[in-house]
Amino acid sequence: MSHAMVIAFDEGRLDWKHLMGGKGANLAEMTRAGLPVPPGFTITTAACLQYYDADRTMTREQKNEIASALSALEKRSGKKLGDPNDPLLVSVRSGAVISMPGMMDTVLNLGLNDRTVEGLEKLTGNARFARDCYRRFIQMFGDVVLGIPHYRFERVIDAKKKERGVDLDTDLTAEDWVEVTRSFKELVREETGEAFPQDPVDQLHRAIVAVFDSWNNQRARVYRKVHQIPDDLGTAVNVQMMVFGNMGEDSGTGVAFTRNPSTGEKVLYGEYLINAQGEDVVAGIRTPEPIAALADRMPDIYDSFVDIAARLETHYQDMQDIEFTVERGKLYILQTRSGKRTAHAAVKIAVDLVAEGVISREEAINRVDPDQLDQILHRRIDPEADLEVLAKGLPASPGAASGQVVFDADTAERWAQAGKKVLLVRLETTPEDIHGIVAAQGVLTTRGGMTSHAAVVARGMGKPCICGCEEIKIDLKKKEIRVENQVLTEGDELSIDGGSGRVIGGKVPLIDPELSSEFQQLLAWADEVRKLRVRTNADNPVDASKAREFGAEGIGLCRTEHMFMDPERVPKVRSMILAETTEDREQALEALLPLQRDDFHGIFRAMDGLPVTIRLLDPPLHEFLPNLEELQMEVARLQAKGDTDPRELREKEALLRQVRALHEFNPMLGHRGCRLGLTHPEIYAMQVEAIFQAASQAMSEGITVKPEIMIPLVGHVNELKEMRELVEQVAQKVQTTAAVDIPFTVGTMIEVPRAALTAGEIAKSADFFSFGTNDLTQTTFGYSRDDAEGKFLHHYMERKILPENPFITLDREGVGLLVSMGVNEGRMVKTDLKTGICGEHGGEKRSIHFCHEVGLDYVSCSPFRVPLARLASAQAALTEREEVAGTTS
Amino acid sequence: MSHAMVIAFDEGRLDWKHLMGGKGANLAEMTRAGLPVPPGFTITTAACLQYYDADRTMTREQKNEIASALSALEKRSGKKLGDPNDPLLVSVRSGAVISMPGMMDTVLNLGLNDRTVEGLEKLTGNARFARDCYRRFIQMFGDVVLGIPHYRFERVIDAKKKERGVDLDTDLTAEDWVEVTRSFKELVREETGEAFPQDPVDQLHRAIVAVFDSWNNQRARVYRKVHQIPDDLGTAVNVQMMVFGNMGEDSGTGVAFTRNPSTGEKVLYGEYLINAQGEDVVAGIRTPEPIAALADRMPDIYDSFVDIAARLETHYQDMQDIEFTVERGKLYILQTRSGKRTAHAAVKIAVDLVAEGVISREEAINRVDPDQLDQILHRRIDPEADLEVLAKGLPASPGAASGQVVFDADTAERWAQAGKKVLLVRLETTPEDIHGIVAAQGVLTTRGGMTSHAAVVARGMGKPCICGCEEIKIDLKKKEIRVENQVLTEGDELSIDGGSGRVIGGKVPLIDPELSSEFQQLLAWADEVRKLRVRTNADNPVDASKAREFGAEGIGLCRTEHMFMDPERVPKVRSMILAETTEDREQALEALLPLQRDDFHGIFRAMDGLPVTIRLLDPPLHEFLPNLEELQMEVARLQAKGDTDPRELREKEALLRQVRALHEFNPMLGHRGCRLGLTHPEIYAMQVEAIFQAASQAMSEGITVKPEIMIPLVGHVNELKEMRELVEQVAQKVQTTAAVDIPFTVGTMIEVPRAALTAGEIAKSADFFSFGTNDLTQTTFGYSRDDAEGKFLHHYMERKILPENPFITLDREGVGLLVSMGVNEGRMVKTDLKTGICGEHGGEKRSIHFCHEVGLDYVSCSPFRVPLARLASAQAALTEREEVAGTTS
Repeated sequence: MSHAMVIAFDEGRLDWKHLMGGKGANLAEMTRAGLPVPPGFTITTAACLQYYDADRTMTREQKNEIASALSALEKRSGKKLGDPNDPLLVSVRSGAVISMPGMMDTVLNLGLNDRTVEGLEKLTGNARFARDCYRRFIQMFGDVVLGIPHYRFERVIDAKKKERGVDLDTDLTAEDWVEVTRSFKELVREETGEAFPQDPVDQLHRAIVAVFDSWNNQRARVYRKVHQIPDDLGTAVNVQMMVFGNMGEDSGTGVAFTRNPSTGEKVLYGEYLINAQGEDVVAGIRTPEPIAALADRMPDIYDSFVDIAARLETHYQDMQDIEFTVERGKLYILQTRSGKRTAHAAVKIAVDLVAEGVISREEAINRVDPDQLDQILHRRIDPEADLEVLAKGLPASPGAASGQVVFDADTAERWAQAGKKVLLVRLETTPEDIHGIVAAQGVLTTRGGMTSHAAVVARGMGKPCICGCEEIKIDLKKKEIRVENQVLTEGDELSIDGGSGRVIGGKVPLIDPELSSEFQQLLAWADEVRKLRVRTNADNPVDASKAREFGAEGIGLCRTEHMFMDPERVPKVRSMILAETTEDREQALEALLPLQRDDFHGIFRAMDGLPVTIRLLDPPLHEFLPNLEELQMEVARLQAKGDTDPRELREKEALLRQVRALHEFNPMLGHRGCRLGLTHPEIYAMQVEAIFQAASQAMSEGITVKPEIMIPLVGHVNELKEMRELVEQVAQKVQTTAAVDIPFTVGTMIEVPRAALTAGEIAKSADFFSFGTNDLTQTTFGYSRDDAEGKFLHHYMERKILPENPFITLDREGVGLLVSMGVNEGRMVKTDLKTGICGEHGGEKRSIHFCHEVGLDYVSCSPFRVPLARLASAQAALTEREEVAGTTS
Repeated sequence: MSHAMVIAFDEGRLDWKHLMGGKGANLAEMTRAGLPVPPGFTITTAACLQYYDADRTMTREQKNEIASALSALEKRSGKKLGDPNDPLLVSVRSGAVISMPGMMDTVLNLGLNDRTVEGLEKLTGNARFARDCYRRFIQMFGDVVLGIPHYRFERVIDAKKKERGVDLDTDLTAEDWVEVTRSFKELVREETGEAFPQDPVDQLHRAIVAVFDSWNNQRARVYRKVHQIPDDLGTAVNVQMMVFGNMGEDSGTGVAFTRNPSTGEKVLYGEYLINAQGEDVVAGIRTPEPIAALADRMPDIYDSFVDIAARLETHYQDMQDIEFTVERGKLYILQTRSGKRTAHAAVKIAVDLVAEGVISREEAINRVDPDQLDQILHRRIDPEADLEVLAKGLPASPGAASGQVVFDADTAERWAQAGKKVLLVRLETTPEDIHGIVAAQGVLTTRGGMTSHAAVVARGMGKPCICGCEEIKIDLKKKEIRVENQVLTEGDELSIDGGSGRVIGGKVPLIDPELSSEFQQLLAWADEVRKLRVRTNADNPVDASKAREFGAEGIGLCRTEHMFMDPERVPKVRSMILAETTEDREQALEALLPLQRDDFHGIFRAMDGLPVTIRLLDPPLHEFLPNLEELQMEVARLQAKGDTDPRELREKEALLRQVRALHEFNPMLGHRGCRLGLTHPEIYAMQVEAIFQAASQAMSEGITVKPEIMIPLVGHVNELKEMRELVEQVAQKVQTTAAVDIPFTVGTMIEVPRAALTAGEIAKSADFFSFGTNDLTQTTFGYSRDDAEGKFLHHYMERKILPENPFITLDREGVGLLVSMGVNEGRMVKTDLKTGICGEHGGEKRSIHFCHEVGLDYVSCSPFRVPLARLASAQAALTEREEVAGTTS
């Protein structure tokens, strides 16, 4: 079967999805299940790949197979393609293995020509319908196959409406459409130099080729990049008998989800339009009615749809996204697929399906994509905040976003690349806007419903979105919005709350999310499965408590430098740095000691009973001083001015000299981490003293402390040896003074390649390794993250020079090799060496899988990523189980 | 024998050097050979280590062994320690396994006390001699054992001379010395609270302990660091019967080399002083007479010394450095050792010894330390230059040096650390000055001879040195020099030519060195033995030719950016960088193309028949633009001034914006290397076009070209793949146009860890790997060399946190592991992959050994290091041979 070029729906199977694509396989499945699916056949992904292999030509074999599938379809439908008396009309739709909604091309009403349109008219007795179909076909074929811009056709229609003095397409008559069609055909001749093709088989072949080609259009490529879908899968093409939702008031079309894709609630959720074709709903040109209203309008249809929806959900064991059409009172199912959903909905649906006995706990764990969780774990608008609500739209994708208003996708992308946060505001979005949606914090449209393009895409990406906010008037020419009595121009701040549909003026204050009971349940199941422990990166008691709430089992990285950044402390820190003698420095440090002690004390309280890894000071000292450039400019200005106070100038000049002395060419590779600890042991000594004093105080309050002192940036075991000695000396001193016995360990970050390469040596002096994979990625690649992301990494991702951004997903071949060398060499020397990761990778799905595979003890991530890490760890463990089962079976 | 604590000279053997130290083993060897060596015994390094193990106490066992060795010595000499009638006097000297001349302590004349001094007087009938010896002993013992500063004793003598109205020590009488001795003893009581020790055995034990302790004095530690001698060897102590060169006009003392240690000429070379003790010669207090003069003064002694010197050289198969003393007409040999020599002398002596049939060619190769070759391979003063010769001194160590005058070692060190080049000017140097000599470009003293401390130490380090330049008057208080009619103060520029003894005003122009015929011979032998090929790093035809003269077998690294730095080209380069469109950039590049073509053409000519590895542009573009800081200051000044031309300001502001846009936080890890080539392929395309046009032109002139195009900073194989494609396309184009077939290869630098870690993948697209170990060291350690060396590496070396500076000697455990992984993985995929190294390590002895061991094909180094690399490669091959022989025998 692996090379089948064409498969009829009634011969296909769901598990041929790799060949038939998602849509085709589902149509086949539904057909076999006896659902009312219009007949048709699928041209497979194998055919698509063969087409590309043959330099974008259809082979004779393909054409032959299509011809015989077509005759079978003609037989089954009782109609013939091109038969003027009873013409078969078909839709030609893309259908990739992994769904890419709206990204590729579709041609509807294919088979119409100057003669069959008359047959259709006679057959249906509906001239307006037939003429409308024909003009739609020419328009779509012209756009998709012939490459004539859509707006060229729209202009013709607009001219006709103007001429007729009407506003809506539906106000145009059959005669009007005949004239429009005539103009369309002229337009085609003008643009292509040829007449509009009248041979339906020729039409079909060309439409199929256009769909194949659309696999590689720009928006499809961007979508695949965003969703990390391989480029070499190709798309299938589905040829299906047309059914018509636009045959009058007893016809219609709609889209529905078997559960609410936003909240997960078990209720049919969708929209329909009477007397319309499918694309009218999706494109958001008319705002549709909610599906529930169908119960009143077409009760029988509604009931049988409800019944079919339930059957489909049970059959697929998942929430379904179903397209249907009613043609003159008869219901057809055009498509079903697993519905895109928000993270919140994904969690609720998965847990509910377990409760309903449909899926197992393990399946539930695998049903939620950790990447999506960002959505629910991100902050939302503070309900206490005083908001200036400007308007309300449809709550199409939950979450809050603030940003500068932009009106087109290109600007959104450009501004975002320049580091701005933008909010994309559009009348409606189209697949061409995809790069703008990627770049924006959120999307706001003034037209379209909950299943419109903007809504579907935004939900898929977890971006806040409001649709159909008609109170807002957009003036694209002036680049401004009018709402209430306000005028906002491009660049003004605006916020949206995609969960409530509120459009809010200015920036909004955000608060922490809470976990739903379903989410708690899912994570509890995950905890039973996972092997990796999950810790958090937290520098203060508030974050620590939050993370603990989210299930963190300790702190994997407590950065002590943030404690130095507190504006009140900065003067003390500076006087410490600028001290000219060790004595002066020690005096300044003494002033900092009680402050640091309080920091640690609060953290120990928050983490009672759990381990807390504290990293001693890491950044170069100049980070705490005034910026060199600014200071320089200031001095230059003071020098140039005639009336400067000479004393002020002298002081600034002196400060400048000191800042310059500490300045570094490559601070990332400079005098920081344990290099500082070695040249300025008094700083580390103060920090260690503060840690142990705090621990001792906490213990006296009945708190269980487990401090783990972490020495940063070790590259040679001798660095760790000396620092360990210092830690132990100071710890001994504090313990003796306080007469307590504090259990503690000393370990190191593995964050430069040399540390990983010599891990065996380093392990001799370390109780634990924590892989700092951010710095390790920087040094292994030789990339400065600050420079790379702005200067060339973007280009690298675009050109696929790197398969992924290594700062987001851990690079297995390079950085990963060092990590596994580090773990293995380290454990060879010390079997009970504790190992973890504390870079941002510790909160990223695929990197967590890697951490599980190399057998780390824990991952540590930011508090809001702790639930994600718990889930991803469980999935990693389940994957391993499956693989083990696979190899043993 | 391995734990022997004490060994008498007549029982010892040369090959017990590890136990007896160099001096002791040689004394034993000479004693066994029947040479006139004063009897004595050695307290071994094992005893020293035991002493340290026992917390710096002598064990009872050690004292017992010393006691029995002492009685044997008393028996042999016929004298008794402390016998008032015929007292045995001994010297107590350090003697390490690896010679550390002058770094440790010595006590002479031990055994004298208030009673034995009278016995000595009676026995010799020379009151002045006896009293002089006693005061010398108290002075030395007081300094070395009791820790009383030397100058405290000197002040007493000065006061006495003033009192007597005399200038020289020799003008003081026996009676004067008696009084001086009395004052010395008072000084000792004052300083130590105890009487000067009168018990000779107690004196002996304390002197031995002081010598043990001197192993760890500061200057010895610095010396070991400089000469990379392990700290845990310990020193032996030699106790030897005193003989006296200061017993009158028929006595004397001297030092001589069997060949000239500066030129290698086969002629006795040395100095002596009549009526003096050994330290008078070495300390440079009196300027001695040349050894040849002894032939007239003491012809018999001279003849027998010449005879002994010849025997010693033959016996040790190497040039010897011999200390002798004449006591009342009898010659004694006090020490012999392999003489320190300049590189020039080392080469000549090694080659001459082969000619004389004394040693083999292989031994000759191993006799010359490649580290030393820097001396002869460095530039010397242009003989055509118009020099202002201020004075002439003794040519104590060859080579030319310019620097700012400093008058003490601490200032020399401080200034050198601040990046200044300094010339150390001293009356005479002492072992306390060692850190200043290390820091200085060269040394100039106004007193002392060719064998003075300054001369010996400077020769050992290969630093230019002039001694005994009495025309120069130093005023230490004013920190100035007077010479001719000039006054130079601290910080003024001065130059010395250590080969001619000329002191020259200001800085001097230098020219390239030439290789002596002996050196050519030695290198020819080396070439027969070595396996590594030796290439050079050269960016222009002049350097390329020079390197070829020195034996380079190709160019391993031709950096193309230096060609961009030419001041005439900078405007063109800048307009290329600042171009706002690709078209503008291409136009600017077109202007650069012919210039680059000429560069490469010249290099191909110079390297006719040899491979030339050309690295495409590597540094970030902002390196070619004005400095951000300066530009910023300028703009700030222009902005602050009231009367600035607004157009000028606008232009500067625009330039500033562009410079800022290109600015990077960590340029070392930024947008450079192939990252530039990938985002700006037009730059690389221009360079490749220039290379192939030049190659084609050269071929048409009958030149054989072997271009190897090197892509820098590859971290992922895809980077190389794309760049390789670009190179091949452009190469194809040029070859088609010119109708030539140019043989070329494409490879990459391995200079970030990821490249080494994924070398197997990268090798698929590479014809060669060139390890850029400077950058690889930076990224593997996470050190920015620019920052590390100034900020913390110094501290790391001092504290031995790192065993070596990894930028000088390749770090085997970390960077080396990556190199060997890279070579192995690469060859696994491509067996004929060519591998080399082009970092500075390619010209460093121990790193070259490493390159040989991992089986690289070649090393590449700067032209002046090519001979060094040839020699070091040969030594590496010989070491391997010995190891193979060792394992098979």
